[in-house]
Amino acid sequence: MEIDYSNIKVIGFDADDTLWVNETYFRDAEEEFASLLEGYETKNKIDQELFKMEIKNLNLYGYGVKGFMLSMIEAALDLSNKKVSNETMEAILNIGKHMITRPVELLDDVEDVLKELSKKYRLIVLTKGDLLDQERKVEMSNLSEYFHHVEVLSDKKETNYQNLLDHLEIDVNEFLMIGNSLRSDVLPLVNLGAKAIHVPFHTTWEHETVTDNDTKGKDYQTIGRLSELLKLV
Amino acid sequence: MEIDYSNIKVIGFDADDTLWVNETYFRDAEEEFASLLEGYETKNKIDQELFKMEIKNLNLYGYGVKGFMLSMIEAALDLSNKKVSNETMEAILNIGKHMITRPVELLDDVEDVLKELSKKYRLIVLTKGDLLDQERKVEMSNLSEYFHHVEVLSDKKETNYQNLLDHLEIDVNEFLMIGNSLRSDVLPLVNLGAKAIHVPFHTTWEHETVTDNDTKGKDYQTIGRLSELLKLV
Repeated sequence: MEIDYSNIKVIGFDADDTLWVNETYFRDAEEEFASLLEGYETKNKIDQELFKMEIKNLNLYGYGVKGFMLSMIEAALDLSNKKVSNETMEAILNIGKHMITRPVELLDDVEDVLKELSKKYRLIVLTKGDLLDQERKVEMSNLSEYFHHVEVLSDKKETNYQNLLDHLEIDVNEFLMIGNSLRSDVLPLVNLGAKAIHVPFHTTWEHETVTDNDTKGKDYQTIGRLSELLKLV
Repeated sequence: MEIDYSNIKVIGFDADDTLWVNETYFRDAEEEFASLLEGYETKNKIDQELFKMEIKNLNLYGYGVKGFMLSMIEAALDLSNKKVSNETMEAILNIGKHMITRPVELLDDVEDVLKELSKKYRLIVLTKGDLLDQERKVEMSNLSEYFHHVEVLSDKKETNYQNLLDHLEIDVNEFLMIGNSLRSDVLPLVNLGAKAIHVPFHTTWEHETVTDNDTKGKDYQTIGRLSELLKLV
């Protein structure tokens, strides 16, 4: 499969797990949550129930740490049959606060790749989640100087991308998206006629996984590390 | 004081308590929260402690219902000296979920004023708070057709407005902002050299209030109801 990137003028980067570590922090939080509640259920059951709670609340809370905190609290009430202690509730709040204030940990090659690409392309950040959290992470990352624009979307479906490309007056043929999520960063763009490159992260939230059927016949490349981008564009 | 609006080409509207009811729902929620905890402290003390908790957490959580829910939970732990029941915790989650799902209640004249002004001006919504909540409210309001753009800001300080005007390529001399908060909708714009009109709402969150000193020498008009706009511009 040979994909031609010679038209590309604007490159969009996902942020969480593409530019910096994120999912790992959610995995850590889930571990801590499970230890707090281990007297009530098996670890497996706790993980499952928390995930179900997050999905149930996704329409209401959207993506991000605050919604995750509220879902942990609700799951703790359910899993303990309303016997969970106030100390555990406090510990859950602290898990979330710790997540929000963790320093930004850049992934390999990120700064070098952005520095190089920013000489030739207009770079933008397209991330979903909580507005304040994502703005704070961009600022703490010290990567702002490489980006023309940072957009936080409430979701990453085709219509969200289409509206944004319209608003920023970007031609879909000239746009390339880079990200770790096939579901959120790659497939919606390929479906719109833009280009996308997949850079997998070692862990993916269950909600972001896709089936072979979703990717069948879709034209995109997968690279093992971000620096390979420099050989492609 | 005679203010000349003849340059204006773009009008920005705050949303919460300018286009639709919002603060009232927070007041209702505070009442419910106080009833839930009335066994532990006086109503006045409960109101004060919840407000202090919100301000303490503002940097961490930003504006919006989810942060408010998390602050109610934390305040309940504190106010009860960690004796609050799981039933109360569940009731607090339900207060917040109810706030998120309440229908959008437009304020007087809103639709007529927007319809009229949209014939002559480019209208945009500039709101702060939670991205998903605000997008949902714009959609539920059925007012989208009148707006060229909807921007949710993490805060409404001068720099937030300056960045946005730059991004949307709006000349500060051609911009008029309309809103209920002197602190968030009026003063930052007047300080930037734009025009602003204040339309007070009957209740203002303590955090949004300003002193006479803040408004001294600042040029802006206050109108009693939104429809008076049509006589000014």
